[in-house]
Amino acid sequence: MLHLILADAELELVPEELWNHPSVINVAQRRGKKPRNILLDSTFHHSAIREHFKGEENRRGRPDIAHYFLLNSLESPLNLKNDLRVYVHTRNNEVIFIRPETRIPKSYNRFVGLIEELFHNGYVPSKKDPLLWIEKLNIKDLLRKIGEENVLVLCSKGEKKRIYEILEKDQVVIIGGFPSGTFMSDIKNFKKTSIFDGDLTAWVTAYEVIANYEFKFSIL
Amino acid sequence: MLHLILADAELELVPEELWNHPSVINVAQRRGKKPRNILLDSTFHHSAIREHFKGEENRRGRPDIAHYFLLNSLESPLNLKNDLRVYVHTRNNEVIFIRPETRIPKSYNRFVGLIEELFHNGYVPSKKDPLLWIEKLNIKDLLRKIGEENVLVLCSKGEKKRIYEILEKDQVVIIGGFPSGTFMSDIKNFKKTSIFDGDLTAWVTAYEVIANYEFKFSIL
Repeated sequence: MLHLILADAELELVPEELWNHPSVINVAQRRGKKPRNILLDSTFHHSAIREHFKGEENRRGRPDIAHYFLLNSLESPLNLKNDLRVYVHTRNNEVIFIRPETRIPKSYNRFVGLIEELFHNGYVPSKKDPLLWIEKLNIKDLLRKIGEENVLVLCSKGEKKRIYEILEKDQVVIIGGFPSGTFMSDIKNFKKTSIFDGDLTAWVTAYEVIANYEFKFSIL
Repeated sequence: MLHLILADAELELVPEELWNHPSVINVAQRRGKKPRNILLDSTFHHSAIREHFKGEENRRGRPDIAHYFLLNSLESPLNLKNDLRVYVHTRNNEVIFIRPETRIPKSYNRFVGLIEELFHNGYVPSKKDPLLWIEKLNIKDLLRKIGEENVLVLCSKGEKKRIYEILEKDQVVIIGGFPSGTFMSDIKNFKKTSIFDGDLTAWVTAYEVIANYEFKFSIL
């Protein structure tokens, strides 16, 4: 089984400091929601983020990264064969668990609506039989819960290796869910590995891991 | 060099029959454009498509497929190393050429705006030095233009093969750019190959090809 963790994903509801910002009120009104119940999205809230979270304006409010990560991983042959588990860990130490049979909305707007519902209720679509649910967990707690010892942290500043060579049959791979910068989570006990000379997006990194795992273990 | 063609992509401006449909007028007004200048998008125009294009309601208006295809392929190590060329061929026999250094907008809304500008002007950002441009070409003309003889058509109904085994160093791979159904283009002279027991999305298929090519020819 391959476990893929998108870590420190920039996925959060609009923080309180921004509830009165015009760009936030605008989007909230258009969607018939309260500012506190919509996702922070740099496409719409970039100036608000710049004003209130200096130095983080090129980092925060990126639900699209989690969306592309899930669209790639959940649609992969590996997942369709039930050999993959994916987790989205957020900057606020929440973990979104996703049942492998979940079909994530292809439309970005619908994805955003789904995640907002998830943050609001804690589960989607029902508490009894959720496809997605949230738990308050940091990366260490999540790793303990997964209970797998082979953990690989991918990072462009790590030691360069060929991903195919190092994947084990039972493997956890941690990928950053942010557009730039470094991990916020405490992962200093893990060796960092780089699979390419340069930055790769989270969704491309995820699929490199998936495709190489499929190839190594004859899934495809 | 690997050439990836997204063929018969469901990417088109709103057809004339739908210019007066409320859902089309709605979206056009909100974006300050004329109905004829916005992309057909099943998220917003599904009922209009169902009314006017019976039997195609689960097929037409899918700019998201081209978007995910480009986000995956242009961000890949293979493209970053300049060993990939991608083409989006549409249902109306237009071909979008994309320079490898193009950074496609991550935001879906911005991508839609970019493609609308492209359909309107024929190029983006400038005629003299375009990153994307459109030519009126069918698949056969495109293949002639590429001038590569190894052509592979991927299709879930084709003969099952391991993609790694069959890729050549100089290779054209054709992937369907539609969510369901079969190719509209005349590709009957090409053998169809399937890489998995079941349907895969275009963007996942594209990355399987890319990752296996990278592995086979030691790019990654």
